[in-house]
Amino acid sequence: VFLENIETFITQLNSINHINLFLTELKEEDTSCTMYPRPEGSPSQTPSVSGQKKVDVVCDALRKAMESMNPNKFYLSILTAYVKKTVPELEVALQKVHELRENPPAAAGAVSAEEALKYLLFLVNVNDLYEHSLGTYDFDLVLMVAEKSQKDPKEYLPFLNMLKSLEPNYQRYTIDKHLKRYRKALVHLSKSGEEHFTEVLQLVKEQKLFSEALKLYTTDSPQYKRLSSAYAEHLVEQQQAEQAGLLLWRCGLPARALQAFTSCSSWRNAICVAQQIPLPTDQLALLARDLAERLTEQRRYSEAALLLDQYAKDCEEAILALITGAVWEEALRLIYMHNRQDITETNLKPALLEAVNSQTGFLEAQVATFTRHRSRLAVVREQKEKARLDMLDEEGPDCPDAELYSEASSVMTASKYSQSNSRISSRSSKNRRKAERKKLSLKEGSPMEDRALMHALSEIISTVDKMREEIHSLLKSLVLFQFDKQAEKLQLVYEEALQTMEGAVPEVWPEALLNSNTPVTGPNSTANSIMASFQQQQQQKPAASQLDPEIPTAPKMKNGVKWKLTILK
Amino acid sequence: VFLENIETFITQLNSINHINLFLTELKEEDTSCTMYPRPEGSPSQTPSVSGQKKVDVVCDALRKAMESMNPNKFYLSILTAYVKKTVPELEVALQKVHELRENPPAAAGAVSAEEALKYLLFLVNVNDLYEHSLGTYDFDLVLMVAEKSQKDPKEYLPFLNMLKSLEPNYQRYTIDKHLKRYRKALVHLSKSGEEHFTEVLQLVKEQKLFSEALKLYTTDSPQYKRLSSAYAEHLVEQQQAEQAGLLLWRCGLPARALQAFTSCSSWRNAICVAQQIPLPTDQLALLARDLAERLTEQRRYSEAALLLDQYAKDCEEAILALITGAVWEEALRLIYMHNRQDITETNLKPALLEAVNSQTGFLEAQVATFTRHRSRLAVVREQKEKARLDMLDEEGPDCPDAELYSEASSVMTASKYSQSNSRISSRSSKNRRKAERKKLSLKEGSPMEDRALMHALSEIISTVDKMREEIHSLLKSLVLFQFDKQAEKLQLVYEEALQTMEGAVPEVWPEALLNSNTPVTGPNSTANSIMASFQQQQQQKPAASQLDPEIPTAPKMKNGVKWKLTILK
Repeated sequence: VFLENIETFITQLNSINHINLFLTELKEEDTSCTMYPRPEGSPSQTPSVSGQKKVDVVCDALRKAMESMNPNKFYLSILTAYVKKTVPELEVALQKVHELRENPPAAAGAVSAEEALKYLLFLVNVNDLYEHSLGTYDFDLVLMVAEKSQKDPKEYLPFLNMLKSLEPNYQRYTIDKHLKRYRKALVHLSKSGEEHFTEVLQLVKEQKLFSEALKLYTTDSPQYKRLSSAYAEHLVEQQQAEQAGLLLWRCGLPARALQAFTSCSSWRNAICVAQQIPLPTDQLALLARDLAERLTEQRRYSEAALLLDQYAKDCEEAILALITGAVWEEALRLIYMHNRQDITETNLKPALLEAVNSQTGFLEAQVATFTRHRSRLAVVREQKEKARLDMLDEEGPDCPDAELYSEASSVMTASKYSQSNSRISSRSSKNRRKAERKKLSLKEGSPMEDRALMHALSEIISTVDKMREEIHSLLKSLVLFQFDKQAEKLQLVYEEALQTMEGAVPEVWPEALLNSNTPVTGPNSTANSIMASFQQQQQQKPAASQLDPEIPTAPKMKNGVKWKLTILK
Repeated sequence: VFLENIETFITQLNSINHINLFLTELKEEDTSCTMYPRPEGSPSQTPSVSGQKKVDVVCDALRKAMESMNPNKFYLSILTAYVKKTVPELEVALQKVHELRENPPAAAGAVSAEEALKYLLFLVNVNDLYEHSLGTYDFDLVLMVAEKSQKDPKEYLPFLNMLKSLEPNYQRYTIDKHLKRYRKALVHLSKSGEEHFTEVLQLVKEQKLFSEALKLYTTDSPQYKRLSSAYAEHLVEQQQAEQAGLLLWRCGLPARALQAFTSCSSWRNAICVAQQIPLPTDQLALLARDLAERLTEQRRYSEAALLLDQYAKDCEEAILALITGAVWEEALRLIYMHNRQDITETNLKPALLEAVNSQTGFLEAQVATFTRHRSRLAVVREQKEKARLDMLDEEGPDCPDAELYSEASSVMTASKYSQSNSRISSRSSKNRRKAERKKLSLKEGSPMEDRALMHALSEIISTVDKMREEIHSLLKSLVLFQFDKQAEKLQLVYEEALQTMEGAVPEVWPEALLNSNTPVTGPNSTANSIMASFQQQQQQKPAASQLDPEIPTAPKMKNGVKWKLTILK
């Protein structure tokens, strides 16, 4: 309503002083919220107009109204509206004063440039105004402000004279840099001639304006190349070697790109750039071996094998890498491709038998740990439940020690966790999670032992469940080489492991644990207190959306993945 | 306690008739559960001894006790203990009678074979007994039973004489088959000589005893091969062509294995087996093209490209497949490997530009739909909340129509869903989910519109969130070819999409929706009623572990996957 009636507002105030007072007293604060309590059920927040700040919206609206009504009469108020914006538009205000001095209006009672400048100096710190006048690159304006500013001419005149002597773009760059406007400085410097490119590079490095700088040069220029090179150096320091490599490659620095790609195991790019150089075959082979070694360390055996096979031309090493990585089918493919069936006997079959043994042993160990944790969890829960009931018995239903009760009773509904969570909610969520995890200990009798056990059980389930594809592939290879007995044993052990874990889920994660709110019920509660607490919860809903991430939830098993072989029974 | 005092029990009964009566009246039912209510807090179920059935445990224990006390005296009760097991041990009982006839005991008052057989016939149907006597392969026993059975000798003698004339293993096979004991029949038939192998094959096919049959022959025998072939045929019919291929391959039928592997796109195995045959190069190339086509249809472009490149020796087609599949880096690798940089200009770059356009458009459409659904969800929720409050106002706080109230109030706590769930809990969970999904409609005003909207929002989040790696790879390739502007646009659009979705999660999935229990509070509740309901929930815990799977939960976003390029701003 206010914005629709600006002119009426101005007319009714009918005083430049009052309008100035109104403008200078504007605050971003919404006093309809902060000074008066909000009636219930009203919308929680007035949406601001297109994300703009209230002060800016009001200043602009008033200024535009005054400019259309009588720009001469409201001259000082218009200046105020510029200056009082959240980011003061001092340059525009100064420009207006400058125009006023150049073309004084004929109208009677119009403000003089002198008066206007005095008023500005009253509103704004003189040094700010001087700096901003510099920022307009208009030396007349600078001098006008400087003269009014009580500044010592011996101080500013040499600087201004020096500036005047400079090439226009270099002049603007010098001013921008003086005002710490580095982006603008970069643009002006880049236009000031090739001889200043060293300064460009220095500015870009100091202020990390790499992306901005690249946009100022054509991609085929030598400057673009030098900037890319500097940027790449910076990116490597920032652990972004792959992006560095891309910049170096595209600007025509393949040798350095190769180095960058190699350092971060970006092997496809490394090989491409090496072939573009082009690296001689023997060096390409060495590169491929180097990359393959890095990939093997990262357990990326398939990729390592590709490099060894296709670029190092060493099919034997490639096949061995695949066997090490349990990539059975691909190993066999290379064996047949290179007609190296001898490796089937010497390496593949022994590796398959070793794999079936180690997988079977691993699964048995996992099931044993799982069963132990599960039994222990039942014991811990029973003990906690017993402790809760004992406490209830001792204290009686009207016990005043409600806090103690709630602490104990919460064990079974997991709200203990959300309580401990709220205690440290001021910390960052990362720190909190770290702190939470520290508290989890599987040691018998540790206060959160139940939670630690649930966490451990969840991890075992995930680990075992994730093995479906791996087991399926191993079973197929075992069958192919007539190791049916070993395959049958593994299939049985894995199936039993999955069944044990799936069967335990309802016991380990009973539904109640998913309801993590503090219990609203208890011996002290009345129907009214509970209702109140319930309504409070409803109101808190949006804020309460961050569930304690540390309550281990029931893992979802990938039962859709078919891994069993029907030919094994 | 009973099992520890068996001998006392027998001594105190001191009557064969009473022991027989006790044995014949044994039931598996645990009358301490079914006839008497269980006291609260007692363990819910007595664990059975090592998974055995109660009836069997008691029968065996009594029999052993009687055998050690006085086998002659308790002869008939011992027979009863064999016969009354859950799977009657008729053969053993018959064998005992047979022994009795061969060696009648000298002891006075001992039961005669005649009497024992009569008693058995009183306990067991005569035909069952006759069949089981056959199953011992002991013709003396068979005759003994047959004579007592009132059966017509003209009926059984020819059959017995025919059996007697057969080779021992074939004789046993014939008996096993007659008794429908097919596994035993198979074992005996396999031992009865090679001339019966056709019968073996027929039996295996009819009874689907493939796995069992393979174990009866050495892997290098012609029988093993024929059985594998028959099994493979069966597996192909069962959509298990890959396993069929493995069987055919390992038993030396590579041509048929190739067919099986090809039919199910098991391309690595297909290629290996083809090279083992060995297929001539031109046919291998045709096979590779055929497989590549199948893989392309399944959007497995990388694998298709490998086949085209390495086996069909058509690098151009391989590169085009990779470009179609948006496998940019691998496409570039092949381009450099085969020195086909021309394809970069003709295909790769245009495809990159097309991809950035279509991805940007796709993301914008997803965000638009997301925003529409989100706004609509807010409207629907407000309407439902209003309807709930209206109903409360109308009915007053003491309204007797509690059910109606609870139906309406539950909208915000999602318990409506668990109610609708319990209504159809008797159906299988798969059917239930199907039925639930049918009820979800995005049509305005549909009864579950809010839930349908949550479901749709969740799907959009998953779709967009899953694109991280794809977008990352596209961005890198765009940068490499200097398409920085397009890359910047895509990065911005994708980042905004992710932010929009992440920001909406707390609003769409407020915490209250995760608490899916029926609300225990309400205007009719008292502190006692709430406490009772709370305790009931605690007791139901194990059973209630199946959360309604259809409450769309907040999707977990993969914020750990770094996809943004720092060089794009």
